[in-house]
Parts: sequence; structure tokens; C-alpha cells
Amino acid sequence: MVFPKTNKELDLIAKYFAPLSLSSKGALGLHDDAALMEVPSGYEAVVTNDILVEGIHFLANDPPETIAWKSLAVNLSDLASMGAKPTSYTLGFAIPSYVEHEWIKLYVSGLEEVQNNYKIALIGGDTVSTKGPITLSITAFGHVPKNTAILRSGASAGEEIYVTGSIGGGYLGLRYLQDNLIQVDGQLSSLFVQMYRKPVPRVGLGIALRGLATSATDISDGLIADLGNICRESDVSANIQAWDIPVPEGVDKLIEKNCIKLQDIFSGGDDYELLFTVPPGSKSKVRDLACIYDLNISQIGITSLGPANISFYNKNHSIIEFDSIGYSHF
Amino acid sequence: MVFPKTNKELDLIAKYFAPLSLSSKGALGLHDDAALMEVPSGYEAVVTNDILVEGIHFLANDPPETIAWKSLAVNLSDLASMGAKPTSYTLGFAIPSYVEHEWIKLYVSGLEEVQNNYKIALIGGDTVSTKGPITLSITAFGHVPKNTAILRSGASAGEEIYVTGSIGGGYLGLRYLQDNLIQVDGQLSSLFVQMYRKPVPRVGLGIALRGLATSATDISDGLIADLGNICRESDVSANIQAWDIPVPEGVDKLIEKNCIKLQDIFSGGDDYELLFTVPPGSKSKVRDLACIYDLNISQIGITSLGPANISFYNKNHSIIEFDSIGYSHF
Repeated sequence: MVFPKTNKELDLIAKYFAPLSLSSKGALGLHDDAALMEVPSGYEAVVTNDILVEGIHFLANDPPETIAWKSLAVNLSDLASMGAKPTSYTLGFAIPSYVEHEWIKLYVSGLEEVQNNYKIALIGGDTVSTKGPITLSITAFGHVPKNTAILRSGASAGEEIYVTGSIGGGYLGLRYLQDNLIQVDGQLSSLFVQMYRKPVPRVGLGIALRGLATSATDISDGLIADLGNICRESDVSANIQAWDIPVPEGVDKLIEKNCIKLQDIFSGGDDYELLFTVPPGSKSKVRDLACIYDLNISQIGITSLGPANISFYNKNHSIIEFDSIGYSHF
Repeated sequence: MVFPKTNKELDLIAKYFAPLSLSSKGALGLHDDAALMEVPSGYEAVVTNDILVEGIHFLANDPPETIAWKSLAVNLSDLASMGAKPTSYTLGFAIPSYVEHEWIKLYVSGLEEVQNNYKIALIGGDTVSTKGPITLSITAFGHVPKNTAILRSGASAGEEIYVTGSIGGGYLGLRYLQDNLIQVDGQLSSLFVQMYRKPVPRVGLGIALRGLATSATDISDGLIADLGNICRESDVSANIQAWDIPVPEGVDKLIEKNCIKLQDIFSGGDDYELLFTVPPGSKSKVRDLACIYDLNISQIGITSLGPANISFYNKNHSIIEFDSIGYSHF
């Protein structure tokens, strides 16, 4: 007689991950070969996958809770940029054998925080060991009413370009954590580190932009690279007033003092703000959304006819010459 | 002026992965932040994720084409066990910098082979670098008419237990590749290696089992472990005629000669056959399906009232004592 005992993987799933699935009936308690996912009639599912590797997308000594936050938030940010309401996710969890249960427990508490904030559930995944770095592969799901998803390809010439929040905090947080590559005071560094570790996906605003934004993306690889994607996919140029790009408090002074370069701020990644275009004459609508979502939303430029390129203008209307093309995680 | 040039990740996506997405409109050419997935009215989506790590789920010197086959096939096998028709998948692709384009090209040709066989498309994913082993995280999607998915939890006492194909070939292939841990002749070893590297997901049969099978799972962690999952989830016992379990040609002799242990065959993983239960009196229906799908389908035992345990019987009706609980990839 063989008693089908549990093994290490089943133990981890039962103890840590199954509780994250309880609000989803289709997750089947993580007890089955796959999960079931209902998509409401008249809607289509939206699917995104981001894979985060220790040492590349997060640092080995980042707190497990914030690694969890980030691993899920960057996926929700992708859904937000499409105008999708997030619903659920799967987690591919590859960890080396030295990772302790305490780490996993804290990681799970971070996932729980995001789940509670955005009313989503874990519906499946896979837990494996690796001899390499911790590797987290999250596939997140949401839905939009059919034909309302906001694509990168919908911008036209003569539209207004906006960004949410501020640009550069994530990049500066990373630089600070990497051997203090920027020198800033304690309060400012905490703010930047928080921006790097716990980016806030603009989920509510993303949904509200359906029907208003003609194109959108989130800023994961840097403003220049991600704006470049919209330009390329929409075949428009972008004319950007560099000084209208919102930077976190304190950054202006760092730039003036030549502690950091403007170009690095615009090409550093990890902001996870939304970048979007709206037709001319939509300023008051955007202002209303900024009030409703209690969020800074700044116009940074306008689109013009393609081919796809980006021009940055100085306060005195002269062109700023950059050579960077945006941060790549690869 | 900044030209939004492509970077290494975008190059890889455009050159190798985007062509795999062409048959799916919702994939948006892999040009956007997320993909769109339609689920037909009256259906629900089925979602599964498997993460494969070099050195654990495949061997470093396995051919890239067969690594691709396996990485996708194991996911399709999960969908098949739920009775789902597969439609699409996302690929999280973490590779060390030494991996050459030739490897990626061959890997992609393997994905293409599976795509052509099962009429599915790549709809998204993420391509990142890692300092660790090659790590492949595939999330696969399918659909079933609502309330027809076959779960692990539906078996009752007094039902017939079946498996497709044969059991143990995958495990023996792995043992052969791992320093010739089994001694077999060339032809047999090629067969086992093929079974290990290119398992065939039972997609057509899985769909056909809707409405007939009361429970199903695929055999990924070994017959004992996976049958144990059905027993636990359905709260039934399983009474197995060990000698009715189909093994690949040549394995009988190896067992008789004590070259391999029966127990190892039943607890080794990597078969990806379907294991399912049907109500009593369904023998002719199962036989018909075996003809239609040109597949061996063998009754290996019956269920009885729980609690969940598995008894293996010998030819002479005596109980075989095992202590193994099935292979765990963890």
C-alpha cells in the first residue's frame, strides 16, 4: 500500500501559495493541473508576462516583500497601460535550495499586499528549484470590454503626450542601492529606493483612459525607450519639452549641480508610470482624471507626423542632443 | 533628436519570436505591453504554467529543438488533462549571455513544430538575461465549454482507472542520459530518450474525454504521485493491477532481469500520459477512443472508497509493498 504523501513542492504550495488563491473559484485551490478563468461576456482577456531575475531586475538584498510587490506590480502596470482591469495571475517560482521558509513567507506577504490593493488572486503556477538566481515569472490577467484596449499603435500627429507621477525615481533608487552611485541625503534616498522597490501600477487611471487615450504604454525601460515604442508603433514623432517632464522633488537641484545627468533620468528604467497620448482639446478631461485619481498628470509634449523620432527641447526652445536610447534589462 | 533604435531584446523578439505570433491577431505582433485573448461565448479559459530549468527539467546538452518541444508539450499535457483545447501561450525566456543565436534559432524551430501540430500561437512573454541556467517559463491557454473541465476531484468509488500509452519510458530515457545509469541496447535507449525529450501531449483524447472521464491528470511526477493526487482530491482509494500497467516494449525483460525496479518505473516522472477514471460500464467507449486516436489505453485498476491510498497487486493477487511516493522535480 502506498500512501500518497505530500512532497516539498506540495508543502510549499499548500502552506504559502494556496491561501493566495482562495478568492478565485477557478483557481481550484491550486489542486489541479490547470486553472479555469471566466471572461465576462462582451469582454476579452488581457495577458502579460514579466520574468524577474535576482541581480538583474531586483537586488539580492532587497526585502522579499518588496521583491514580491515589484514582481506583481510590473505586470499590473502592463495591464494598466492597456486599460485592463486586473483579475488574477500565475506565479512561476524558481528558487535555489538555500532560500529559507522565512524568505518565502515574507515574499508571500508582499504578494498578499498587492492582491488586497487590487483585488486579484493567484490562480496557478509552478514551484521549482534552481541552481541559479531567484527567478520569478508572473503571468497576469485582466479584461477589457471588446475593442477598447489601449494599444501603443493608436497615436496620430497633433496629439498631446502625458505622463503620470514623476520620472527618474526608480532609476535613482537603483543607482543609490548600487554602491551609492548617487550622493543624496537620507530622506531623498529613501524616497528613491521606495520608488525603485515599490512602483505603483496606475491601474485605476489605466481603466479610466479607455476611450480617451489614443495610445499608452508604461515606462519600464525608460521614458525615451518607451516613448520610442509608441512613436514606432504609431508612426509619429514626439516633440518633448524636457523641462515639463516631472521629476521627483529634489532632482532638479541634483541636475543643476551636475550630480546627475538629465539624459540618464530620461533613459533609466523602473518608473512604471503611464505614458499616453490624447487628442487635442482633452486637457480638461485629463485634469479631471488627475483630480479623481489624486495623481500628477503632466503634459510633456505633442506628436507630429512620422517617421518615428523624438526631439527634446530646452526651455529656450533649442534642441537638446542626447545619444542614449533607453535602458534595457537584457 | 533621439532615434528610438531597437535593443538586443527587441532584436530577438522581432527576429525569432514575433514570427511565432503571426496566426494570433490578439498577440499584436508582440509589439504591445500585453496580448488580447478572446474566449468564445459559453466557454471558459484554462490556464497552466510550467517552469523548466536547465539541469533539472532538461539536460544542458539536450538538443534545443527537443527542449522547446518539451517546454511547450508539458504545458499542453496539463491542458489535455483538463479536457481543454489549447489555443496559445506566453514564453518567459531567461538565458545566460553565452547562449548563441544558433541555439535560439533551433529552440524556436522546436516551438514551431509544436505550434504546427496543435494549431497554437505565441501571444506574449518576456526575454531576459540570467547569470544562472536557462530558465523557460511557459504559460499555456486553452478553453473548454463552461462546466465541462475534467478535474482531479471527480472520481467516485467503483470506477475504472485507465492510462494512455506506456509508463516509464521518460524516466528510463533520463536515466540513460544521466551517465548510462541503465544498460540497454542502442535501439531501446533511443526510444527511451525520445520519450524523455519529446513527450506527446494527449490533446485530442483529453478533449474527447469531456463528459466521459470523471477525473483526469497527466503523469508528470510519476504514476504513483499523480494517481495519489486523484485519490486525495477525490477521496478514493486506488486498487492497481501492477502487471496491467503498460510499459514500453523491452522493459518487461529489464524488470525480469532485475536491471530496473518496477517501483522506479511507477514513481519516475516525465511520461506525460493521461491517467483518468470513468464510470463502470464505459469499457466500449474507451475502446472506441483508443481506435479513433490510435492510442493504447489500458485499464490498470479500479477505485474504491477512501481514505486516499493506493494498493498495487501482483499477478497472484498479493499486495506489492512499495515505499516510494513518486518523483518530485523540486
